[in-house]
Amino acid sequence: MEQLIITCQKNSEEYVDRKLAVYFYGWLVGKLDPEMIDRFHETGVNPLSIYVDEDRKNVRFHLGLLNDEVIEQVRLIFNDENMTTISLESSSQKSFEIIKKESRELTAKELSKRFYVDEAEGWHNVRIVTPMAFKSHGEYRFLPDVRLFLQSLMKKYTYLDEGTEKIDKDLLDELCRHVQISGFRIHSQRYFIHHAYVTGFCGNFILKCSGSQTLKNYLKILLDVGEFTGAGVKTSLGMGAIQLIKKEEKDGKAKG
Amino acid sequence: MEQLIITCQKNSEEYVDRKLAVYFYGWLVGKLDPEMIDRFHETGVNPLSIYVDEDRKNVRFHLGLLNDEVIEQVRLIFNDENMTTISLESSSQKSFEIIKKESRELTAKELSKRFYVDEAEGWHNVRIVTPMAFKSHGEYRFLPDVRLFLQSLMKKYTYLDEGTEKIDKDLLDELCRHVQISGFRIHSQRYFIHHAYVTGFCGNFILKCSGSQTLKNYLKILLDVGEFTGAGVKTSLGMGAIQLIKKEEKDGKAKG
Repeated sequence: MEQLIITCQKNSEEYVDRKLAVYFYGWLVGKLDPEMIDRFHETGVNPLSIYVDEDRKNVRFHLGLLNDEVIEQVRLIFNDENMTTISLESSSQKSFEIIKKESRELTAKELSKRFYVDEAEGWHNVRIVTPMAFKSHGEYRFLPDVRLFLQSLMKKYTYLDEGTEKIDKDLLDELCRHVQISGFRIHSQRYFIHHAYVTGFCGNFILKCSGSQTLKNYLKILLDVGEFTGAGVKTSLGMGAIQLIKKEEKDGKAKG
Repeated sequence: MEQLIITCQKNSEEYVDRKLAVYFYGWLVGKLDPEMIDRFHETGVNPLSIYVDEDRKNVRFHLGLLNDEVIEQVRLIFNDENMTTISLESSSQKSFEIIKKESRELTAKELSKRFYVDEAEGWHNVRIVTPMAFKSHGEYRFLPDVRLFLQSLMKKYTYLDEGTEKIDKDLLDELCRHVQISGFRIHSQRYFIHHAYVTGFCGNFILKCSGSQTLKNYLKILLDVGEFTGAGVKTSLGMGAIQLIKKEEKDGKAKG
């Protein structure tokens, strides 16, 4: 599993298009093997997640690459020396000059260590960076729901680990019995995809796990993987990105 | 149904005790007929709701009085010419000089008119002024839930109208089928009661009703009554106060 972060220059200090991740996905898909993309759409499992964030000067495209096939293809595209610019015809800024490429990896070995050796805390402050929504019984849901959130993370992780999204329902039940939202600060936000929109929520919530150390470790690796995959619907089009807020970061902010 | 707002002077510009409504309830109960209070506690229905808000100079005690008995007793207390100060021993400011008393009424006749004559909109921006929480299957819930919110309002309204909290479940089902939260900006907040606390949420959410005009009118009067009663748990101790934000108010703020 790999995360590739491509930093590009902005032409102005204004906010970029809200739909930039959607346009970027379109651009990237045009460069990937069509047969692979077809397979993603057929199986309903997309091992590619994308989101965009920005500051005044730069915009960053975050790519979560969940299997070796997609890692290899995306590397081929961005390791090419001629790949200096991303051209997105539909966005207001058409051309994005690449000024930095960074990547971080999360290996199966590292995940094993975190699960079997480390002792995770049971407390997590989860930032929802881009609008998150869930689909349940055919309908969109856009309030935080522990079960739908954990179920989505378990599906992503199980896919990564076993190549299938079929999760262990008993384990999900066990997790839901011991994990609660203990605080939140959230707001709803519309996310536009082509001509339609999905309402999601942004902000942050605090998860507390009161279960065994094993359960705490499992929750931690689900969240660690979640930083690469996102959670909920449309994670390949920019929705549902999460970041774990470290305690120090929070304290630092409080002091600032 | 009556709402009495008692404005008092603050000794300093700092925030008042978070538990001020709890202390105020204790003070008020000491002045009310003990037999009536016992009856409230036995039946589990409290026709008295209280919340406190403040600005830099003043603090306001809002009393929602749901039946004639409690209206009469509370009037007796505050119409007394000697009643110029509220003395709360447990709070940091002990003595609150009363500088204004205002009241507004919502009569059965006015409610009838709103239900049978007016044509309510199906859109409402609901501000949650003090932390709101629900109790469901013995557990506290502190994320907005349309069903628990409407159920609580229906109980209050049915009590007012028929003297019982037994609500029409079919009507609640019908309401829930047509009413949705379409947007929100909320955060969790702890509310301290004596030595314990209940976690609730504050902020605002937008309710949309897509049903018949009758259903829209019913929702509107539930919310109108809700401004007097609050919703959820511990409304007599300061929790669960709501205000309907008028469209003009919102636009005005946006312009300002």
